[in-house]
Amino acid sequence: MRLSKMLVPTLRDVPAEAEIISHQLLLRAGYMRKVAAGVYTLLPMGLRVVEKITQIVREEMNKAGGQELYLPIIQPAELWLKSGRWHVYGDELFRLKDRHGREFCLGPTHEEIITDLVKKEVNSYKQLPLLLFQIQNKYRDERRPRFGLMRGREFIMKDLYSFDKDEEGLEKSYQKMYQAYTNIFSRCGLGFRAVEADSGAIGGNRSHEFVVLAGSGEAEIVYCESCDYAANVERAEGVIVEDLGREQVLPLDKVATPGVKTILDLIEFMQISIEKTLKTLVYLADSEPVAVVVRGDRDVNEIKLKNEIGCLELELPGEDLLESLGGVHVGSIGPVSLENIPIYLDREAASIANGVTGANEPEMHYINLNYPRDYKATVVGDFIQVRAGDPCPLCQRPLSSARGIEVGQVFKLGTVYSKSMGATFLDEKGDTCEMVMGCYGIGVTRTMAAAVEQNYDENGIIWPRSIAPFQVAIIPVSSKDEQQCKNAERIYERLQAERIECLLDDRDERAGVKFMDADLNGYPFRITVGKKTIQKGTVDIKNRRSGLETTVKIEDLVGELQKMLKNNY
Amino acid sequence: MRLSKMLVPTLRDVPAEAEIISHQLLLRAGYMRKVAAGVYTLLPMGLRVVEKITQIVREEMNKAGGQELYLPIIQPAELWLKSGRWHVYGDELFRLKDRHGREFCLGPTHEEIITDLVKKEVNSYKQLPLLLFQIQNKYRDERRPRFGLMRGREFIMKDLYSFDKDEEGLEKSYQKMYQAYTNIFSRCGLGFRAVEADSGAIGGNRSHEFVVLAGSGEAEIVYCESCDYAANVERAEGVIVEDLGREQVLPLDKVATPGVKTILDLIEFMQISIEKTLKTLVYLADSEPVAVVVRGDRDVNEIKLKNEIGCLELELPGEDLLESLGGVHVGSIGPVSLENIPIYLDREAASIANGVTGANEPEMHYINLNYPRDYKATVVGDFIQVRAGDPCPLCQRPLSSARGIEVGQVFKLGTVYSKSMGATFLDEKGDTCEMVMGCYGIGVTRTMAAAVEQNYDENGIIWPRSIAPFQVAIIPVSSKDEQQCKNAERIYERLQAERIECLLDDRDERAGVKFMDADLNGYPFRITVGKKTIQKGTVDIKNRRSGLETTVKIEDLVGELQKMLKNNY
Repeated sequence: MRLSKMLVPTLRDVPAEAEIISHQLLLRAGYMRKVAAGVYTLLPMGLRVVEKITQIVREEMNKAGGQELYLPIIQPAELWLKSGRWHVYGDELFRLKDRHGREFCLGPTHEEIITDLVKKEVNSYKQLPLLLFQIQNKYRDERRPRFGLMRGREFIMKDLYSFDKDEEGLEKSYQKMYQAYTNIFSRCGLGFRAVEADSGAIGGNRSHEFVVLAGSGEAEIVYCESCDYAANVERAEGVIVEDLGREQVLPLDKVATPGVKTILDLIEFMQISIEKTLKTLVYLADSEPVAVVVRGDRDVNEIKLKNEIGCLELELPGEDLLESLGGVHVGSIGPVSLENIPIYLDREAASIANGVTGANEPEMHYINLNYPRDYKATVVGDFIQVRAGDPCPLCQRPLSSARGIEVGQVFKLGTVYSKSMGATFLDEKGDTCEMVMGCYGIGVTRTMAAAVEQNYDENGIIWPRSIAPFQVAIIPVSSKDEQQCKNAERIYERLQAERIECLLDDRDERAGVKFMDADLNGYPFRITVGKKTIQKGTVDIKNRRSGLETTVKIEDLVGELQKMLKNNY
Repeated sequence: MRLSKMLVPTLRDVPAEAEIISHQLLLRAGYMRKVAAGVYTLLPMGLRVVEKITQIVREEMNKAGGQELYLPIIQPAELWLKSGRWHVYGDELFRLKDRHGREFCLGPTHEEIITDLVKKEVNSYKQLPLLLFQIQNKYRDERRPRFGLMRGREFIMKDLYSFDKDEEGLEKSYQKMYQAYTNIFSRCGLGFRAVEADSGAIGGNRSHEFVVLAGSGEAEIVYCESCDYAANVERAEGVIVEDLGREQVLPLDKVATPGVKTILDLIEFMQISIEKTLKTLVYLADSEPVAVVVRGDRDVNEIKLKNEIGCLELELPGEDLLESLGGVHVGSIGPVSLENIPIYLDREAASIANGVTGANEPEMHYINLNYPRDYKATVVGDFIQVRAGDPCPLCQRPLSSARGIEVGQVFKLGTVYSKSMGATFLDEKGDTCEMVMGCYGIGVTRTMAAAVEQNYDENGIIWPRSIAPFQVAIIPVSSKDEQQCKNAERIYERLQAERIECLLDDRDERAGVKFMDADLNGYPFRITVGKKTIQKGTVDIKNRRSGLETTVKIEDLVGELQKMLKNNY
């Protein structure tokens, strides 16, 4: 391709709208442009990268036995009413009406459509397993679209749905996809981790996220350096360290705590360690008050709490509303005498001996609080946010934490959708059974952005070779020098004949601009054609990642390049 | 690919919903399924055909200098307000609001988005010409979606937009696209004609449609067998046959015509030829009455009329409304004394000597009517629908007519959008000029349907080879016979190694079912592996189109097939 014929509008300045590096660089290097909040045009260079990722995804899906199809983006409301998601999906669903007033949505995901298809077309165990996938635009009306392609409202995804006759089949499909995802992100040249993920309140009993590690990522994960354990913090299991253990149990007592409003005030006043305190928060779960009790130094994991309650919305009410609940005193809330509100007690908090907690009276606290002697709980469970330093649930060594970008998720759905949509089949004995489903997504445009977050320097992007828009940029130093341009042309034709994907920078621009743009655009190799080429018959090959420049004779160029192109880094 | 692993649900019966053959066969052969009116899922077989067509389109667009990019499907209303189309596009535009109440539409076409992009990123004549294209879903909320993929509400299109610095450049881009379209439909193996097409009231001064000839098509074209002329009837030019000519002009007279209500009544009553009569129709053009006068045997071409008036809507009012206009009498309308209504007079009608027309009075007509002696016209122009037998505008020989399916259109937009959206550039002299645009569309899914309309028999589809989902189906006659199955497997592997695209029908089905499905699905060749294969080492190759069956030795199979696959038919 000749750069003079391509629309690659590079920018020297960082656009004000872009907070994170991938957003900045993809705009600056001319890969995309914003059309509306969370809605982008992929320019020719951007589309090339997307096509590279798409092709890798497609190959691995095919290899794993997936069949590609193409489902509609506009989906009739009736299917979503059947699955029960039309009303619960909320504001993230883009909804529209046709000229006859019939309701549709723009697919954020395709469980309804695909389950309905399979329900109609598949009826025998002989037709299972079935792995169906597509690669297309998805829509989510995000409250706060941001970070460019990272959290868009229109974005490209691959979604595969597996249909099996039993759990064992699902496990096999799940493993196939897990492996395919590992292959995909490895082939894309990304540093990633598969982590256990929350699988939500409904259905799903197992899920993994594939997270590309990057400081700018919105996902927080914990992992163990001693064993294999890795999980999203939303999901990571809290472990009770047993030897905090049981000390002599003392009688409950109520004490005055003048001026104490917060946990920090409390440990200061009482001269106790924070691990002895219990923190009680009152939430509204779908408008009903619930209390959750965790250790004073812990954050509540709202996902775990939501899953346990089985509610859709969880919010912290204002102080006025709290006080009106009766029995609750802000600044001194505690589980004792909280009679009318269900109490979700974290098991770590439950294990505290002789704890300290609010007495639901102004400036009063209980000391020597012990469960279950002194208070009741509706449920005792795991409601905390795990953090670095907490023990690994598998080997008890301290966990590490990191941030990353979720680029893929594999998810066991089970029979939730086949039940609600009636997708059944006849098994070997002629009995009607529900299909056992899984769903598996990859954010294609997000993967492009994640690759940039992991591969850049102060001069621009450094693409892994497998997803670079071009492998090699050929730059004649002086566009005024006819001989240089001719040499560059000849090299361009030679590399094309050898099927090396190359871009000829034939623009009438200064050398500095061409070099800067090549660095910004992140082609793995750059070939400089200058005076030396005329005088000595050599060119310089620069490796974008290492910065190393090698001088090679023109006759050796193809062989050298082919050697260099073998690695993905 | 193994058919046992593919979702290809064939149907024996013709689905009630399908009126035309492509709709019936694409459903029956398991290429697609309906999700809602005009909204379809492409099953794996259907997607394969779409991918073949897409690839041909992409290659020809690239060859013609096009650059592929990917524009958003959801488009902000503000761009459509700028171009002026938000309010005029009407009910065909799917509209939606985001969570903040901001308005969007689902792109039926992308002039607004692309012009806005080019306006922002291109500012010099050096960057022109620019040919940008994409292949993606388009949306049109059709009043009556029907005929399957032929007139859908969600469909796949290629759209290219050209930006040139002047009319001469546009003409070059237009010619490039015209040639590329000719290549594309030829490579797809389709019988088609490029015909002159209406280019609408706004902008466009030249347009061609590419029409695949098929009796079921909604497009009506006329063409000349003596010269090159071909046009959509919407566009085809009416020609006055001069020698109908001038006879002795007689004085105007009003006569009683008791019982005469229609043109046929009139010629019966008067004993004249229909070519002597004038027919006057009153329309509401954007709610304002207008009259159009054509010869009694002619149909009004509403497109031509609309273009001349420059209105958006044209409708025939009810009789009550007509009578209330004053001066109009239904059954006897005529141009004389129609004072308050603008009259659009067809030039053929204007040339009638001593014509007969209604007198706007009950049961009264004028005879010996001559223009301009006896009545006035606001505009004299070409307002008739041309038909077979009419003279060719180029060579005057009689035109032929045919029906077809419009699969592509090339269109000179000129500066309509660059004006309204402000897409300008600096020319060689530093002057600010508007870009001169063209747009060029191909209906990809519609092309698939059109290919079926042209290529089928009573047993099913007969794909042109270039767009067939598979080139060859391999069928072991008995799926119980281990040796036959093994032979079929071996041939399958052999053909795959030779990169011949083949499908192995390894389903546990009767031979008859497998043969029927292969015919229905339309693979160009079918290889039968049976007893002869074991006994004599031969297989039968059947050509789906010709029906000819050839017996070849297994060792000659690859060579023979490669020979056969060379032609597209």
